[in-house]
Amino acid sequence: MLSRFLPAWSWLQNYSSISFSADLVAAIVVTIMLIPQSLAYAMLAGVPAEMGLYASILPLIAYALFGTSRTLSVGPVAIVSLMTASAIGQFAEPGSAEYISAAILLALLSGGMMLAMGLLRFGMLANLLSHPVVMGFITASSLIIALSQTRYILGIEAHGENAFVLAASLLQNIAATNLFTLSVGGAALGFLIWSRNRLQPLIESCGVSGDNAYRMAKAAPVLAVILTTLAAWAFDLGSRGVALIGNVPRGLPSIALPAFDATQWRELAGAALLISIIGYVESVSVGKTLGAKRRQRIDTNQELIGLGAANVASAISGGFPVTGGFSRSVVNYDAGAVTQMASILTAVGIGLAALLLTPYLAYLPKATLAATIIVAISALIDFSSIKRAWHYSRTDFAAIATTIGVTLVLGIELGVVCGVTASIVLHLYKTSRPHIAIVGEVPGTEHFRNINRHQVITCPSIVTLRVDESLYFVNAGFVEDKIYSIVAENSAVKHIIIMCTAINEIDLSAFEVLESVNQHLREVGVTLHLSEVKGPIMDCLERTEFLEHITGNIYLSQHQAIADLDHRGERFNSL
Amino acid sequence: MLSRFLPAWSWLQNYSSISFSADLVAAIVVTIMLIPQSLAYAMLAGVPAEMGLYASILPLIAYALFGTSRTLSVGPVAIVSLMTASAIGQFAEPGSAEYISAAILLALLSGGMMLAMGLLRFGMLANLLSHPVVMGFITASSLIIALSQTRYILGIEAHGENAFVLAASLLQNIAATNLFTLSVGGAALGFLIWSRNRLQPLIESCGVSGDNAYRMAKAAPVLAVILTTLAAWAFDLGSRGVALIGNVPRGLPSIALPAFDATQWRELAGAALLISIIGYVESVSVGKTLGAKRRQRIDTNQELIGLGAANVASAISGGFPVTGGFSRSVVNYDAGAVTQMASILTAVGIGLAALLLTPYLAYLPKATLAATIIVAISALIDFSSIKRAWHYSRTDFAAIATTIGVTLVLGIELGVVCGVTASIVLHLYKTSRPHIAIVGEVPGTEHFRNINRHQVITCPSIVTLRVDESLYFVNAGFVEDKIYSIVAENSAVKHIIIMCTAINEIDLSAFEVLESVNQHLREVGVTLHLSEVKGPIMDCLERTEFLEHITGNIYLSQHQAIADLDHRGERFNSL
Repeated sequence: MLSRFLPAWSWLQNYSSISFSADLVAAIVVTIMLIPQSLAYAMLAGVPAEMGLYASILPLIAYALFGTSRTLSVGPVAIVSLMTASAIGQFAEPGSAEYISAAILLALLSGGMMLAMGLLRFGMLANLLSHPVVMGFITASSLIIALSQTRYILGIEAHGENAFVLAASLLQNIAATNLFTLSVGGAALGFLIWSRNRLQPLIESCGVSGDNAYRMAKAAPVLAVILTTLAAWAFDLGSRGVALIGNVPRGLPSIALPAFDATQWRELAGAALLISIIGYVESVSVGKTLGAKRRQRIDTNQELIGLGAANVASAISGGFPVTGGFSRSVVNYDAGAVTQMASILTAVGIGLAALLLTPYLAYLPKATLAATIIVAISALIDFSSIKRAWHYSRTDFAAIATTIGVTLVLGIELGVVCGVTASIVLHLYKTSRPHIAIVGEVPGTEHFRNINRHQVITCPSIVTLRVDESLYFVNAGFVEDKIYSIVAENSAVKHIIIMCTAINEIDLSAFEVLESVNQHLREVGVTLHLSEVKGPIMDCLERTEFLEHITGNIYLSQHQAIADLDHRGERFNSL
Repeated sequence: MLSRFLPAWSWLQNYSSISFSADLVAAIVVTIMLIPQSLAYAMLAGVPAEMGLYASILPLIAYALFGTSRTLSVGPVAIVSLMTASAIGQFAEPGSAEYISAAILLALLSGGMMLAMGLLRFGMLANLLSHPVVMGFITASSLIIALSQTRYILGIEAHGENAFVLAASLLQNIAATNLFTLSVGGAALGFLIWSRNRLQPLIESCGVSGDNAYRMAKAAPVLAVILTTLAAWAFDLGSRGVALIGNVPRGLPSIALPAFDATQWRELAGAALLISIIGYVESVSVGKTLGAKRRQRIDTNQELIGLGAANVASAISGGFPVTGGFSRSVVNYDAGAVTQMASILTAVGIGLAALLLTPYLAYLPKATLAATIIVAISALIDFSSIKRAWHYSRTDFAAIATTIGVTLVLGIELGVVCGVTASIVLHLYKTSRPHIAIVGEVPGTEHFRNINRHQVITCPSIVTLRVDESLYFVNAGFVEDKIYSIVAENSAVKHIIIMCTAINEIDLSAFEVLESVNQHLREVGVTLHLSEVKGPIMDCLERTEFLEHITGNIYLSQHQAIADLDHRGERFNSL
């Protein structure tokens, strides 16, 4: 019972010291990885660096208690940070007090929405985001992030309301590149790219075991931070035009509720909803992937509650919107975490960093953080999924192309909304013109297939239509027209059988069309039959008078229908 | 060729004098019926009475040339007039010059939109309006119209932004009822209600033939107009507080293009779109009903062009939005019209009325027109469809209830939009949780049915799932979970067969889920098979590597699958 409201209870009950040491090792690795990431994503979101640390303390503990994934690592992530910046940038100047309070409010609102959706068991809502839309959105957002961070690597100004304007602005100002900044940023970028595949083998070749080498290699970003900070301090790079993050207040966040401001709530509500949904989808997909490896199931509605609690915790401790991150969760998992105790210990580690390390961050170059972000999100840019969608089906391609195009041109909020709308509209369009096959009996079987694809037996006076779609308001008229045109073209037809194997629903609009088809066919002397009607549809039809009105019969199987109607034995092989 | 662009050509070619006399009789009946209706709907739309006549001249001729229905009668109708009043009422004072120009512009915009949709062959769009939504919208709008006209019958003021406030306002002011107005309105209302069923038999009992009696009975509204106008003149009812329509300018409309005003266009565009769609749906359903009686097909895209031309014609001749009306088309049909010549002659009749009769309309009480409207729309209020939807299915009921509720509470524009949204969302929700049956073989056949509904033969090591829905992004996760839980519950299972009879599409999201299901089942030692995969889906799967990845086979028929997999003969009867 307790573990239903507090999923952590299920592992806390018999938590062992073996688990603790595994979790501790993972926590150290993740903490080291998370410190530069937290600072970097705070920069991406346009908030002061310390807010990145604050968003990596309480939220981790909240998710650890209320979330269902054992190894998911929560905190600031790239896409949600970009969405935060994009949402608040419309109302306030980055870095201003108004901007900061809006970021905190955004976390509170999206946390509240996630909690509400979780309690109302709305987890299914996320299904509206099809895979092409999610992939397209992530790829396009990552491109925008990479573009926006390039200015920090070059040390130039660049702004733009969409990806193309931003790129043009970068090109325009490229002559103003600060060479000291570029050296730092380029070195950090080069080192991080190199270390991604080469550092672990190098450590292993020094005689360290594979597991430990993996863990040590995860310190590459923190190493880049230390080295570039030292360089900035030693060579006084700040006075040479290299942007540094400056003073970061020392200490733990204070707990406070954001002030209530109805106008601000209204302005941010839409963005908060999008952040909730995107954050949830991103996190759940990570959680499912990791859970599958260890046969652990996650509960989607409880995940909404866990993530909602994490965001509310972030808001009351001065953070910004958070969710489950892909790369850090994978590292957490690979470094050996077995329970969410690893996240709790990570929160302690980040708390210690906020207390002890902040004074040394003043000389940290922004270019280093930009390099961290670019390397992290480069893994998310996935053009192969576009190619894959193209090969698989044109509608999936249309959905992914719409999402990427709109995200790049009109911004990330509209990108998601248009992607979802496009996938729903395309689905409705496809079902509005269902595939309708005329079928015949496969010789020697009781099986019926499309006369255009298979060698089958048919009968001149009987036409069997297999409508490959549920009948509902969107396609009822199309199916009606098709039946009439078949009857008009075949004067020999005496019986029309609708084979209902693929009809999963007949709604009221379609039912009324069916009644009028029955009526119309009666007038032209054609009998209407149904075969293989599914149970749930029969239940529905039995509540009406259709079963008395229908001119023909309702057959359990198509084979029975033909056997019964073809009493003169007119069947012949179509080929 | 010519008849494709000008459908009228098909009947003009061999038009006979017999047809002409039939059309002439129908035209006289419809003209007599249309004069009071035109004036009444102009009042409902909030525009001067003469605009009702103008909207019944050129639009009829335009539709006659470009429309495909032989007997549809176009002109001002109740619902579209209400939508016009509701749309313009937000920007201008009824009766003001601004209001009038907005009404004309609305006709131009919706005409232009219909033409564009027709040329782009968007006729299918109207399919998004399910029957419950249309029925609910018509019933709710009719209620609003009846409420709004009651004030004219009582001679009181009443306003309200929604149906309930309007009703409350009526009740509040009921003490101010003008007894003279109520006498006129009540008498007209009583006479019209009485005449609806009783006038024709009375005329027949005087020895007139059934057909002629029917035609004469249609003069009841014009009789009410004549009698109450005479009464208002004779007893000087205007000075006793009875509202009269006042001076109506004599003559035909002048032709002019509305002035271009970008702001006004933007303000009215949404309303124009809704009026286009509702007007089109209403008109096409009438046209189809009448066409079916005489085996005449109508072309939905050409109908858009015909109605678009009618609305543009209305706009340039100083009218307001028009569409095909139900009652007048039925009267036109029943009175013997065989071609659209009847409509052209009706236009001539209304033109003559505008030239000759307008001076006599000054004393016409508004209460008489209100009574005409109330009697006309009372036939549209259809509570039985609500009951029918309730019995048929809860989702159809939810769609109709949403439409009626929102229309009454939040207004007619939101009513349609929410109704359409609700029906799409409900459809997606239903398909997001598809019916999944475990099936077995019906003894003695090759037919497979739900083990819970039929006595069937199953095999312990083989589970066959029939998923009763296309697999797409909305339900892919649900189906995946279901498969995993079935495998988890049945440790004896060695084979999972997905029987694809009802699967009409597998989109990319679902395909990726299918690949991961295949992978996951392989890890737990269960083989995945597909049976009865449809042609279009096989085409799709063949473009991927799935057919090499799948652990099991793809069988043409479910019977073959069982015969092949159950080589040890483990099948047994489940009952």
